[in-house]
Amino acid sequence: MLDAGRMEANIGRLKARLARLGVSLRPHVKTCKSIEVARRLMPTPAGPITVSTLKEAEQFLEHGVTDILYAVGIAPGKLEHVVALRGRGADLAVVVDSVEAARAVAARQASIPVLIEIDCDGHRAGVKPGDPVLVDIAGALAKGAHALGVMTHAGDSYNCRSTEAIADMAETERRAVVKSAAVLRSAGFASPVVSVGSTPTATFARSLEGVTEVRAGVFVFHDLVMAGLGVCAVDDIALSVLATVIGHQRDKGWIVTDGGWMAMSRDRGTARQPVDQGYGLVCDEAGRVIGDLIVSDANQEHGIVSRRDGGALDAARFPIGTRFRILPNHACATGAQHDAYHVVRGGPEVIARWPRFGGW
Amino acid sequence: MLDAGRMEANIGRLKARLARLGVSLRPHVKTCKSIEVARRLMPTPAGPITVSTLKEAEQFLEHGVTDILYAVGIAPGKLEHVVALRGRGADLAVVVDSVEAARAVAARQASIPVLIEIDCDGHRAGVKPGDPVLVDIAGALAKGAHALGVMTHAGDSYNCRSTEAIADMAETERRAVVKSAAVLRSAGFASPVVSVGSTPTATFARSLEGVTEVRAGVFVFHDLVMAGLGVCAVDDIALSVLATVIGHQRDKGWIVTDGGWMAMSRDRGTARQPVDQGYGLVCDEAGRVIGDLIVSDANQEHGIVSRRDGGALDAARFPIGTRFRILPNHACATGAQHDAYHVVRGGPEVIARWPRFGGW
Repeated sequence: MLDAGRMEANIGRLKARLARLGVSLRPHVKTCKSIEVARRLMPTPAGPITVSTLKEAEQFLEHGVTDILYAVGIAPGKLEHVVALRGRGADLAVVVDSVEAARAVAARQASIPVLIEIDCDGHRAGVKPGDPVLVDIAGALAKGAHALGVMTHAGDSYNCRSTEAIADMAETERRAVVKSAAVLRSAGFASPVVSVGSTPTATFARSLEGVTEVRAGVFVFHDLVMAGLGVCAVDDIALSVLATVIGHQRDKGWIVTDGGWMAMSRDRGTARQPVDQGYGLVCDEAGRVIGDLIVSDANQEHGIVSRRDGGALDAARFPIGTRFRILPNHACATGAQHDAYHVVRGGPEVIARWPRFGGW
Repeated sequence: MLDAGRMEANIGRLKARLARLGVSLRPHVKTCKSIEVARRLMPTPAGPITVSTLKEAEQFLEHGVTDILYAVGIAPGKLEHVVALRGRGADLAVVVDSVEAARAVAARQASIPVLIEIDCDGHRAGVKPGDPVLVDIAGALAKGAHALGVMTHAGDSYNCRSTEAIADMAETERRAVVKSAAVLRSAGFASPVVSVGSTPTATFARSLEGVTEVRAGVFVFHDLVMAGLGVCAVDDIALSVLATVIGHQRDKGWIVTDGGWMAMSRDRGTARQPVDQGYGLVCDEAGRVIGDLIVSDANQEHGIVSRRDGGALDAARFPIGTRFRILPNHACATGAQHDAYHVVRGGPEVIARWPRFGGW
């Protein structure tokens, strides 16, 4: 279920923040994978957006979105698909982080726009900020592609323990790309695009000077991981899973529901946080947090709801047939388990069904 | 990717075992969610099968499968759907574990066949083996439904640490339902169905005397959790995810691929086992295990492949574009991230595409 009011407030808040910081938003639609949601995120019907798969690029292109960044390092075997999508009108840019990949893109001789990925926090792909190899990569790209600039993602911001630490991480993220763009510019590569993005750093960055765009995705729905980081309040979380009580184990203080890990996903992102929310935090059907009930364990189609402290609960309050709305640890992972959003606004009445897609 | 030869061998092995033990197989199709796979599992085109959602019941009914057990405790709000499916020709049975749920089913006055769930290992739903409440439940069912017998699932067998312990657990599972059926029979309820099932206990049960059917699902594909339990060999695992190298972090011994948790699922079932396989064990494109390479970390669309011991590796062996097949921790969870099986037989050549479904 998707609470439209909460979603709109989440979008409005980040957009206002980025406007104050003087940068544009290129929302990451890997979280929503829905044109209905994306239309409420994008400044224009044509974008811009960030995608994590070429399937996303293809699906959004079919709905008229053309300004697209595919933000996962390109595999040479996907270049034919990239060229085909560009031939159908997509202004689709790709990402590389090595001379090897840059040569493969340039070899297509298709003027594909390319961002060079910078590793600002050691957490996955990218070249080190300001590394001289940046000039070699841009040089390789110049032989048949179009070097547009640099991008990074401060994924390690999910491991911060204070909003102050997130703000520091945002500054690290900013400096990484600004420094890298400077290296490219002093070698004669204009690098008009300087792109950063994660929901935590976008929320707490003190300055984005020198940055041209922010990619963030999870802010549209928020989730318990974001709440645990202090990036949102629990009441900002717009996504929930409807589950029904199917039984009890009274001696253990368990309520058994039909909302297992298939519905919630296996994501246990709050397990590393100070407050472990299990597989999700339990609300009533109207979306109000009940108290300290969490989905403490999950099988494929069974959820075990219990008090966080494992204490006794009054099963009679939650008879068979009672409906819960469960707030998820990770909106991207939970959304991916479902083929549509059932849209509500405040109450439990479903006012629309917005399809979403998956796959590659 | 699905290796048909491995799958056929897995099916043949369990079927032969159950035939020797004198019980029939009611395969759990929550693992495969594919009629093509189910046809290779079922003794007849009409079933029998076990399902975990009414969506599965509906999808398989559309392909002519009629003998169906919905093995998750029934929520009263789903009874209308159950009655509709039975009206369309499904011999669909449901499960209860309380007088409250039994009354709700009986109140439909639709002669719905019902199994009473037994909790053989304290791991989720069910009444205690032999508990006198069984007679109350059967009595409540008699007022408008059809009490068929008892069922249990030894989910805790996934936590066993030896095949001996699994065989003991299988005996606990068997005794739980045999004892419960005896209680019902002495109260005058015939209880023709005595149903157990988990892949580990089905594989190592010494006797299934008194049991009429076995429900198991994951054996069709097997996975790293099953291999870690000694239930299969790594080379029996029929399911894998194709991923492509997109870069390296040479100083860390990392290979970066486009196979992240969206492709593998967030399931980390081997984390609790003696050998933690990360997000998956890495094979070459022909399906041969490379050595000690695992997916040690994952983002949504990025996989980090490294040596299990974190040691150095020769990145030149795995240039950008190299394809891996990654064996999954949990076949049910990984399968659910994909909309089809690409069927191979030994080598990398895809010989068929079998669709699968998801949702509720």
